[in-house]
Amino acid sequence: MTSLQLVAKEEMVERFLDAAARGDLAQVSTLLSNAPSLINQTGYSGWTALMFAARNGQYHVVETLLSHGCDKISVNASSQTAYDIAKFWGHRHISNLLGRTDDSCHRVLPGSDLNQHENYFSREMLDRLSGKRTDQVWLEAKQSHPDTVFLLFSNLSPMVSSSRDNDGAEVETKLCRFRCDAVKDLLQKPATVLIFLGVEKRNKPSSSSSSSSSQTQEGVQEPPAWFAINTDEDAAELLKRCREKNCSFPKSPNRDLLSFTEEEAGVVAQARSVLAWHSRYSFCPTCGSSTKLEEGGYKRSCLNSDCRSLKGVHNTCYPRVDPVVIMLVIHPDGNQCLLGRKKIFPVGMFSCLAGFIEPGETMEEAVRREVEEESGVKVGPVQYVSCQPWPMPSNLMIGCLAVAMSTDIKVDENEIEEARWFTRQEVIESLLRGARLAFSIPPRQTIAHQLIRHWIGMNSNL
Amino acid sequence: MTSLQLVAKEEMVERFLDAAARGDLAQVSTLLSNAPSLINQTGYSGWTALMFAARNGQYHVVETLLSHGCDKISVNASSQTAYDIAKFWGHRHISNLLGRTDDSCHRVLPGSDLNQHENYFSREMLDRLSGKRTDQVWLEAKQSHPDTVFLLFSNLSPMVSSSRDNDGAEVETKLCRFRCDAVKDLLQKPATVLIFLGVEKRNKPSSSSSSSSSQTQEGVQEPPAWFAINTDEDAAELLKRCREKNCSFPKSPNRDLLSFTEEEAGVVAQARSVLAWHSRYSFCPTCGSSTKLEEGGYKRSCLNSDCRSLKGVHNTCYPRVDPVVIMLVIHPDGNQCLLGRKKIFPVGMFSCLAGFIEPGETMEEAVRREVEEESGVKVGPVQYVSCQPWPMPSNLMIGCLAVAMSTDIKVDENEIEEARWFTRQEVIESLLRGARLAFSIPPRQTIAHQLIRHWIGMNSNL
Repeated sequence: MTSLQLVAKEEMVERFLDAAARGDLAQVSTLLSNAPSLINQTGYSGWTALMFAARNGQYHVVETLLSHGCDKISVNASSQTAYDIAKFWGHRHISNLLGRTDDSCHRVLPGSDLNQHENYFSREMLDRLSGKRTDQVWLEAKQSHPDTVFLLFSNLSPMVSSSRDNDGAEVETKLCRFRCDAVKDLLQKPATVLIFLGVEKRNKPSSSSSSSSSQTQEGVQEPPAWFAINTDEDAAELLKRCREKNCSFPKSPNRDLLSFTEEEAGVVAQARSVLAWHSRYSFCPTCGSSTKLEEGGYKRSCLNSDCRSLKGVHNTCYPRVDPVVIMLVIHPDGNQCLLGRKKIFPVGMFSCLAGFIEPGETMEEAVRREVEEESGVKVGPVQYVSCQPWPMPSNLMIGCLAVAMSTDIKVDENEIEEARWFTRQEVIESLLRGARLAFSIPPRQTIAHQLIRHWIGMNSNL
Repeated sequence: MTSLQLVAKEEMVERFLDAAARGDLAQVSTLLSNAPSLINQTGYSGWTALMFAARNGQYHVVETLLSHGCDKISVNASSQTAYDIAKFWGHRHISNLLGRTDDSCHRVLPGSDLNQHENYFSREMLDRLSGKRTDQVWLEAKQSHPDTVFLLFSNLSPMVSSSRDNDGAEVETKLCRFRCDAVKDLLQKPATVLIFLGVEKRNKPSSSSSSSSSQTQEGVQEPPAWFAINTDEDAAELLKRCREKNCSFPKSPNRDLLSFTEEEAGVVAQARSVLAWHSRYSFCPTCGSSTKLEEGGYKRSCLNSDCRSLKGVHNTCYPRVDPVVIMLVIHPDGNQCLLGRKKIFPVGMFSCLAGFIEPGETMEEAVRREVEEESGVKVGPVQYVSCQPWPMPSNLMIGCLAVAMSTDIKVDENEIEEARWFTRQEVIESLLRGARLAFSIPPRQTIAHQLIRHWIGMNSNL
């Protein structure tokens, strides 16, 4: 950019901010349609258009900026968000708009932010129809139905196709979807594990590639069913079944399973967790005998008819889900958070502390115990924020904020390499500039990232 | 009571309510010390003394009534609590008092009630000291230490002593505590399972019966360690080891484990969950071989040196905790809740719906799926309230409120017998009168009960 271009750009930003401050909705809209990148530009002291509009009570400008997807969480040089500013200057209609939750629900469930953020691996595009898992006739009909979608897993890794941009960087990963004709032979092999995942939800547009519904005898449309197959056939041979380009079975789940669409990520979470259970639990833990797969892949029953696990209901027969607490610990001053790093993390990356919930322990006690064990910091109040399935192999990450009651750090070196208090400003810098800084946080697909963002957006400084 | 007595009693209630309304603190106190049962009495339209005091801004009367333990959740004929009334009439100091939360924490974590209720099975009187589980020398020293406490389990049931009142009704159940001399022989037997539970927390008064601390070589006091033992020795013979009266191994955990103190209940939750895991998981689920117990009872390793479970970290080696969602579904009108009953419930008892979280599922999605499967009701927003370990065998009950988006009920008869909408008033009646009504809810030790109480106390009608 030449110096002339630079001046022109600065002038345009200035005009844009000024229009927002004056409430000139027409000019704000015109400038935005010519130069959409203006939306989050800052002027003096880091003020954005949203902040100026919030300062001066320009409700319609705030509305327009929000509808264009402007950033609500950025702060000015005084660490104030637009929400903080609107609240401080008494523009209640604007602070309500910036902190809006669904009103009718709020009346029934007061005191909580009900517009919960959706974490990666959390969207459910399928209705699990668990009642159908015991209906063997229905399941078999679906397995040979032309609309049914099959996903192929090898060694717990799904077959995917990846598209790349010109630089060779991967831009999108998609699940390879098969019809029954293409996998019929695999279903006959004894080592194949087949899981019924569910049917596509009726109220959403189908994301299946071809004709996506069929007629039952009553003439009611039935949405397509989905299954996952895990097979020990040769992976290179399996890839030949797919007509799409750049197919593979990714090798590193913690990295390679993070580039799906939100919808496919949810399917992967479900399928991989159940398949991982089968891979680790094929023998009865109570008596050591072999087991057989039942109920669409959601049950394993012992083949030894004398086994205790067959009398009554036993968790040995059902998939395992391991609850984990992951927490952002906030300094008593409200403006710093505690992050730690393990030796295996990339250089400079810090994340939230985490650990498995133990038998006989509440979520809140697990947070307190893990934080004190790993960092020596004592924790008081704990607040649940949101959760995320993490299918490596089958964890449920329960995300919490926690308030520290002490600040001295003493790291358990068996667990983590280093733990430190980071200021709000350091964290915001890292969110805005990402991995270009010496200090970074995990990617947006992790609940650790979302907990940190949640805290930054909490406006605790007014 | 004669009609004369009845008139006298009514007059006394009238005087008491009038004193509260006028702010006559002296008379309120005098009447209460003469007749403590006055405290929750109601006059015209169901108004209590607390409500009258809240209506007229009588702060000191409110304070006194609260310090005498008056009921904050009861409502008048207009379904208003004292909090609702204080808020409506603008007595903010009183509504703050009635809805108080810890202010300094509230500043750091706004928008949530941080004075979380403590559920049964949730108190931790022991510090688990998980770092010591791999310190075999330390563990062995503790096993022969005179201060160490051992609990004895037979068939997953703890040995307890029960005291009874004159009517023969059980009033309290206590864990039988043993010293090492009394159990030394059991520790040598191969079928004995020994779990290290932790050490008594330093900041709490010891609840151990005898001298409860020892000096290490450095002269620092070390709190007593606790272990749990499960043995298959003859139960009648084991009972002879105990000198206390009325010892037994209770047979029905869902009933008999609910009469401990809060502190002992927490220990039972931890011990029974881990012991139940050993009883069900003594064989390696990955290869079917035998396993050995390690790390103070928190790990089982496969004895087959070729087993996959020995390479890397595998959940097959660690105790299982099964996360369950349990939810009170609230009608869109805010004044009814959905309760269901299973065939096995006592006559007239209804409870919250509940179900296991599945692999790849969030808590919120599990709530929506389970409610729709069991009752046909569609659920929108979900709010976490609190959780409770439930050691039968090792569940983590995650308690939520949920807002219904539809109201027609269609019960899945495989799961529940009946589900119905109950009004706030019906639920309050049941809370106040308990099992004497045709409709009852589960006892206070259950999170279902606490969720229902939480909703009643939520003041959602202002």
